Amino acid sequence: MKIDINCDMGESFGRYQLGLDAEIMPFISSANIACGFHAGDPSVMHKTVQMAVEHGVGVGAHPGFPDLVGFGRRNLNMLTDELRDAIIYQVGALMGFTQMLGANIQHVKPHGAMYNMAAENESMAKTIIETLLKLNDQLILFGLSGSKILSIARKSGLRVACEVFADRAYNEDGSLVSRQQPGSVITDSSEVANRILKMVKERKVTAITGLEIDLELDTICVHGDTAGAVDHVKHIVHVLKQEGIEIAPVGKFL
Amino acid sequence: MKIDINCDMGESFGRYQLGLDAEIMPFISSANIACGFHAGDPSVMHKTVQMAVEHGVGVGAHPGFPDLVGFGRRNLNMLTDELRDAIIYQVGALMGFTQMLGANIQHVKPHGAMYNMAAENESMAKTIIETLLKLNDQLILFGLSGSKILSIARKSGLRVACEVFADRAYNEDGSLVSRQQPGSVITDSSEVANRILKMVKERKVTAITGLEIDLELDTICVHGDTAGAVDHVKHIVHVLKQEGIEIAPVGKFL
Amino acid sequence: MKIDINCDMGESFGRYQLGLDAEIMPFISSANIACGFHAGDPSVMHKTVQMAVEHGVGVGAHPGFPDLVGFGRRNLNMLTDELRDAIIYQVGALMGFTQMLGANIQHVKPHGAMYNMAAENESMAKTIIETLLKLNDQLILFGLSGSKILSIARKSGLRVACEVFADRAYNEDGSLVSRQQPGSVITDSSEVANRILKMVKERKVTAITGLEIDLELDTICVHGDTAGAVDHVKHIVHVLKQEGIEIAPVGKFL
Amino acid sequence: MKIDINCDMGESFGRYQLGLDAEIMPFISSANIACGFHAGDPSVMHKTVQMAVEHGVGVGAHPGFPDLVGFGRRNLNMLTDELRDAIIYQVGALMGFTQMLGANIQHVKPHGAMYNMAAENESMAKTIIETLLKLNDQLILFGLSGSKILSIARKSGLRVACEVFADRAYNEDGSLVSRQQPGSVITDSSEVANRILKMVKERKVTAITGLEIDLELDTICVHGDTAGAVDHVKHIVHVLKQEGIEIAPVGKFL
Repeated sequence: MKIDINCDMGESFGRYQLGLDAEIMPFISSANIACGFHAGDPSVMHKTVQMAVEHGVGVGAHPGFPDLVGFGRRNLNMLTDELRDAIIYQVGALMGFTQMLGANIQHVKPHGAMYNMAAENESMAKTIIETLLKLNDQLILFGLSGSKILSIARKSGLRVACEVFADRAYNEDGSLVSRQQPGSVITDSSEVANRILKMVKERKVTAITGLEIDLELDTICVHGDTAGAVDHVKHIVHVLKQEGIEIAPVGKFL
Repeated sequence: MKIDINCDMGESFGRYQLGLDAEIMPFISSANIACGFHAGDPSVMHKTVQMAVEHGVGVGAHPGFPDLVGFGRRNLNMLTDELRDAIIYQVGALMGFTQMLGANIQHVKPHGAMYNMAAENESMAKTIIETLLKLNDQLILFGLSGSKILSIARKSGLRVACEVFADRAYNEDGSLVSRQQPGSVITDSSEVANRILKMVKERKVTAITGLEIDLELDTICVHGDTAGAVDHVKHIVHVLKQEGIEIAPVGKFL
Repeated sequence: MKIDINCDMGESFGRYQLGLDAEIMPFISSANIACGFHAGDPSVMHKTVQMAVEHGVGVGAHPGFPDLVGFGRRNLNMLTDELRDAIIYQVGALMGFTQMLGANIQHVKPHGAMYNMAAENESMAKTIIETLLKLNDQLILFGLSGSKILSIARKSGLRVACEVFADRAYNEDGSLVSRQQPGSVITDSSEVANRILKMVKERKVTAITGLEIDLELDTICVHGDTAGAVDHVKHIVHVLKQEGIEIAPVGKFL
Repeated sequence: MKIDINCDMGESFGRYQLGLDAEIMPFISSANIACGFHAGDPSVMHKTVQMAVEHGVGVGAHPGFPDLVGFGRRNLNMLTDELRDAIIYQVGALMGFTQMLGANIQHVKPHGAMYNMAAENESMAKTIIETLLKLNDQLILFGLSGSKILSIARKSGLRVACEVFADRAYNEDGSLVSRQQPGSVITDSSEVANRILKMVKERKVTAITGLEIDLELDTICVHGDTAGAVDHVKHIVHVLKQEGIEIAPVGKFL
C-alpha cells in the first residue's frame, strides 16, 4: 500500500522567509513549488527544486494568480487565455530549473484561489486540463478529491491525483469545511494521524456531522508553515510507516 | 552568403502595445522575445512565439533585469546567483511556450542594461555562459560583435552569434557610439542599407572617425518600435536580397 | 448652465505610452489620474498632475486594483481592509505630487473593475466612502449616475458627482449596456454630442430600447485612448459651448 | 541630554512577516516605515503608522528602490527624474496614512542601496534634498553621520539628523566597515551599549583600527529583524536611561 504526501514549498521571496522547507522536505514525497506569481522567486525555485531532487521528492509546479501581495488567495477574474498563458509561463519557468538539474516535473497543483475556483468552475477546469495535456501529457494534475475538475480531467485523458487534507474537516458532500467555521481545522497530531490512517486504509473519512463518507485519495496535503509543522509531519509519517504504508511520489505508483 | 536579421519582439504588456511585431515578423529571421521581466507578459509571449513559428523565424529568449518600469534599461547590481536564476527562469518560461507549440529556442540575447553590462563584465559574462551551457548547450548566445563576452563564450564551448547594429555609429575600437553623442544613430534608410552591405560583404564598417575597421557578424539587429521601422526593415531586406544575400535564422547556418 | 468633462489620464507606464493626454487635456475640466496600481508610474503621475494644473483641470485620483497586467479591469476579491488601504495609498501617492505642485485633489474615481464592483456592492461602496470621508471630507466621489454607491455616499455626507458616459448605450434601469452586447458603444461624434446635449439640458437619455429615461449628471466621461478621440472630444466641447453650456471642474460648481 | 533611536519598520509584505515591530516599537523614538517599493504594503503601512502614533514615535518615510525581490539593497541606476518621482510617490503614499490618522511625517530616511549611494553621490544627494525641500521643508533627512549628503543638505537649508549605527564598526574616516569584512558587525549587547554611551556622551567612537574618531550624532539606528533584537534594544535603552539620557523623536529636540 502506497500513498503520496505533498506540501507547498518554495514560498519564500527575496528577503522573506516562509515555510520550513529544509526541515519538511525529508518527510514528504511530492513538493508543490511556487513559481513566482503568488510566491517564490527564481533563486528560491532553484534551491527548492535542488532540495526536492536530492531527497527523491516529486517536483510539482504550483502556479498561482499573479497576486504576490495577496499570496494568490484572492479570487481573480482572469480571461481563459490569460489563465492558460499564466500556467504555461509558470510551469515553463519551473521546467528551466528541472532541466538545469536533470529532473522532470511530475505534477501540477494550482495554488490557493486558483485551486479553489478551478475545482468547481468547469471553464477554468477545462482551460487548465487542456493546457497541461498540450504542454506535457505525462503531467499529473492534483485536485481536491471528489471535485469536478478531477472528473473532467479523467474524461480528457489527463492523469490526476486525488488530494485530501489531513488537518481539515469535511462536509458530508466531500467538500472542505470553510476555514471561517469552527472546527474546520484539526490541530491535534494524533487525531490527524488517525484520520489519515482511516483515509488510506478504508478510503473513508468522518465528516464534521459525524457521518462516515467515502473518499478517494492518492496524495495527502500537509503544511510546512505552521507552528509545530515539522513534528506534525514527522508523526504522520511515523504512523503511516508503522502500519506498513509506503510513502512515495505519486508518479511512481499511479 | 547568408546573414541573420534579428529584432526585439513581444515587448507589449497587458493593455500596452509596443512594437510593430506583426508587420516586422515577415522580414526578419530571428526574434528576441521578451520574457516578462523588463517587458512582455504570458499572453504576449504566447502570441509572439506562435507568430515566429508561423514565419519560420528563429525563436530567441530575451531575458532582462526585473525592472518593468525601467524597461530593463537601468543598470542593476544583481548577485551572481540572482542573475543566473533570473535567466533560467525567463528562458524556462519561454520554453513553456515553445514546448506548447512544438518549437525550440534557438538563441538567447540578454536585453538592454543586462546586454551592455555583460558585454564587458567578465563575471556577468561567465555567469550567463555557464548558465546557458548547463541549461541547453545547443543555445546560441547573441552578443555585441567584438565584445569580451563572445570571446569567453567561444573558449567555453558555447555557440555565439556576433551581432551588429545597422543603425548605430561605431567607435574605432568596435564599440557603439553612446546614444548621448551626436551622430550615434543613423536614420537614413539608404545609408543604413549601404553600411549593412559593407558589413556583410567586406566584414568592415566605417567608424564615426572615418576609419574603416574590421567587424565580425552573424546577425544584424533591427528595430521594430521606431517611426518608419517597417519601411526601414523592408528596404534593408530588399537591398540584401538584391545582392544575392540570403536572410536566414542564425541556427540554420552557424 | 455648467457641466464637467472628465477623462482618464496618466495611464502610461515606463516605456509604454497610452492615451493622448497632452492633446485631450486642454478640452476637459477634470482628470482622473492613474496612481500606479493598474497603470501610471511616479514620473507619469508627476507630469500629468503638472499638465492638469497648467490647464486649470481638476485633479482626481483614479485608484485601481493592484493588477498592472490586467489594467485593473479584472474583478479581484480584496478584503475590506486591503481595499481601504489600497485607496489611501494611491490617493496619498497622488497627494505627494499635488503638494509638490501646490495643488489639491478635487475628486476620486475608482478605476475599471473597482468602479464597476463598487457601484452596486454595498460593502465595497461603504469602505470607499468611509475611507474618503476620513482621509479628506472635501473630496468628491465620482460614481455611475444612478448607482447605489452614490446614494450611500450622499447619506454619509460625502460629496458626489454623478457620472454619465457619452459614448455608451444605457439600459432602461440606467445601467450601462455591457460592452459584450451589440450597440453598446456609440462611435458617431454627432450622435454622441446630441446625446450629451439631451443629457445636460433635459437630464434625459434614450435607452437602447428606445425608452427615454431620467438621468442625473454632473460630469461626462470621455475617452482619450481611442482612434479619433481628440476630434471626438473637441466636437463635444464645441457643441456644448455653442449651446452656452460652460465646461468647468465639478469642484467649482457642485 | 537627548538622543533619538530609530528602527526600520513596516517591512512585512502580504503574507510575509519581517521584523518584530510590535515588540520594538515601545523602545524606539523614530520609525522608518517602508513605503511599498522595497518592502511594505498598504495594510502594513497603515498598521505601522498607527502603532507609531500610539507610542508617540516619530513617523518617517523609508523610500527605497523599486526592487521588492532585492529588498532595495541592489544598486539601481535611476535617472534624476525617476529618483525624484519615486521619492515623492513613496512619501506621498505614507502621507495618506498619516493624514488618515491625524499625524505628520517627521523625517525621511532613504533605504538600503538608495541610502548608501546617496550618501556620497552628489547628484543623487541633491535630487533627494531638493525634492524634500519642495515637498515639505519641515521634513528631517536622516543620513550617515559624516556623509556628503548631510553637508549638502545643511547648505541647502534642509534639516538633517546625523545617524550612527550602534552595531557596526567604523573606519577611521567615519565610514562604516563593509559587511564583507570580519568584525564589521558587533553582536555583543554590552559592547554595543558602551559604544553608544561613548557616542552620545563624548561624540566619539573607536574605529576598527583602534583610533578614536569624532562623530556627530542625532539618532542611533537599531535593528528589529535579527535574533535577540528585542533584548538588544531593551538593553541599549536601559543603559541610556540609567545615564540620564532621554530618548525622544529627533523632531522634538533638533
